Amino acid sequence: MTGRTPKIALLGATGAVGRAVLELLEEGAFAPAELRLLASERSREERIDFRGEELVVEAPGDRSFRGVDVAVLAAGEEASRTWAPRARAEGVPVVDLSAAFRADPDVPLVVAGVNDAAAREARKGIVAGPCGAAVPLALALAPIHRAAGVERASVTVLVPASAAGREGTRQLEAEVLALLSGEEPEPAAFTHRMAFNVVPQIGSFGPGGATAEEGAVQADLRRVLSAPGLRATATAVRVPVFHGTAAAVNLRTGRRLGAAEARELLRSAPGVKVVDAPAERVYPMPMLSAHDESALVGRIREDPTQESGLDLFVVGDNLRLGGAANALAIVRILTGERGS
Amino acid sequence: MTGRTPKIALLGATGAVGRAVLELLEEGAFAPAELRLLASERSREERIDFRGEELVVEAPGDRSFRGVDVAVLAAGEEASRTWAPRARAEGVPVVDLSAAFRADPDVPLVVAGVNDAAAREARKGIVAGPCGAAVPLALALAPIHRAAGVERASVTVLVPASAAGREGTRQLEAEVLALLSGEEPEPAAFTHRMAFNVVPQIGSFGPGGATAEEGAVQADLRRVLSAPGLRATATAVRVPVFHGTAAAVNLRTGRRLGAAEARELLRSAPGVKVVDAPAERVYPMPMLSAHDESALVGRIREDPTQESGLDLFVVGDNLRLGGAANALAIVRILTGERGS
Repeated sequence: MTGRTPKIALLGATGAVGRAVLELLEEGAFAPAELRLLASERSREERIDFRGEELVVEAPGDRSFRGVDVAVLAAGEEASRTWAPRARAEGVPVVDLSAAFRADPDVPLVVAGVNDAAAREARKGIVAGPCGAAVPLALALAPIHRAAGVERASVTVLVPASAAGREGTRQLEAEVLALLSGEEPEPAAFTHRMAFNVVPQIGSFGPGGATAEEGAVQADLRRVLSAPGLRATATAVRVPVFHGTAAAVNLRTGRRLGAAEARELLRSAPGVKVVDAPAERVYPMPMLSAHDESALVGRIREDPTQESGLDLFVVGDNLRLGGAANALAIVRILTGERGS
Repeated sequence: MTGRTPKIALLGATGAVGRAVLELLEEGAFAPAELRLLASERSREERIDFRGEELVVEAPGDRSFRGVDVAVLAAGEEASRTWAPRARAEGVPVVDLSAAFRADPDVPLVVAGVNDAAAREARKGIVAGPCGAAVPLALALAPIHRAAGVERASVTVLVPASAAGREGTRQLEAEVLALLSGEEPEPAAFTHRMAFNVVPQIGSFGPGGATAEEGAVQADLRRVLSAPGLRATATAVRVPVFHGTAAAVNLRTGRRLGAAEARELLRSAPGVKVVDAPAERVYPMPMLSAHDESALVGRIREDPTQESGLDLFVVGDNLRLGGAANALAIVRILTGERGS
């Protein structure tokens, strides 16, 4: 479980988050001693160029995890439920990016930079990453919570097409092309039209009327911030953007925190870039977040409707920051790898 | 100021809202006895087909308002400041859709269906319509406010390109086409790239850090709902949608209102359509709002983070409902016209 150049098995290597993991490794996040690329039957035998080598993508099997130092699972909930136990049977620690274990109190839910210590206490050998939208939100809220106690958060999350994987990206592109050619786009299997539309449903509806995504944002923030009493409500909306999750955040804190103090706290917080010069039209936007591994935070202002209220606008690259970078940072924590 | 078929002067006839007014009249909202189409120098001599006739668009001048029963001004703040006094000098009542008079306590701010009576008390002869986003919000909040008192509203408004007029629509289309052809879009004069992006700035920034649009939503809701004590905070974001303003709304009411009761109240409210069957994937979306003259309200659910909290998702056609239909409804109130 230690060593400076870990052997990594990556399940979901051909998916949107898997590709972002490979990009980060190619850019030098660190050099794994070995990289095993695994994906569903459909992608088997696909070849991926990685640092000048051609790696063959394999279907996962009983021996896929033998001898690696860590398994990163980025192939969805069902695949994680199948393959996490197999990796554990080989004694391999698992970083899981699906929803499979997020509700398990014995599986720490970790955003690197916020609660790294929790990753080291993974009693079951599994560490989960939260839903993509919760990563930039947790990074932005953590320093505020530490300094002033976030009592309530009301969040509108604007979720891009790529959060639905490569299929989501393809759908948005096809729809936009069809509509601009005056054609009716093909109806999509799992969602309403995304192009030139916004859709207030991501995931299925729960009993209280919130969607799975909304429930995940609320629950994941509470767990990552170690704030079981935090009252969070969310509305999650699909917007016709390829990459970058944006969130309008309204907070009530335990003690009053001015905009200037919040800005200062955020400036020195890990994983956060303050992008907040509205007079120069500088604020976070999805187009600025591409390939960035930080949560961009701006529009920081006091909310005069509350005794101690604060409004923020937070944006993060959903694949890279929300998925890949967090996963690799957890790999580093688990293996003692310190990056290059 | 009365009569069943009023003579109307329409300033801004070639703009996005002006065209929506003409569409509504063509579809039979009512038949004006005379329709004078006015627009800036740039559009002068443009010809518009209207009910089989070819109407010539004229530049406004000293005699433009003489003899008409009502003037509808939809050409922006500067034009309204110039031409409202000229219309008033001719004794003509004015329906103004710009921001020019919205803050004037002697100019009623009216959403038809919410505070019609106020239009009849226009001491200066001017009635203003609120910012486009406030119209569906006021329609949705009015029955809730009447029944349970809205104490606080936190709103994220998703504003489409057409709210910036025909220029906004053209910009979004050009940018999408350029990006999908692998080209860099032309930089726009007044905003960041809209295509596949969201931009948290609409209008200029005020001293507290809110934009003009955010300030307008807050102030207009308070005035239209006659709720000077209503605490409202807003974040307004441009989204790459052509038509339809959407808003995620979080409310705290004076008395607890269940989701079922809220749904019932909204079902019988004027100008509101309840679109709320999430299990069947039915909820408001911009693509459903096109050409609709109602506020679509759905995702109605209790907010468990508050004693008496409610979440809603509200969508309205910004040009038609937010601009044109409200203007014509005010024309009806002012002239006694009852529609056809």
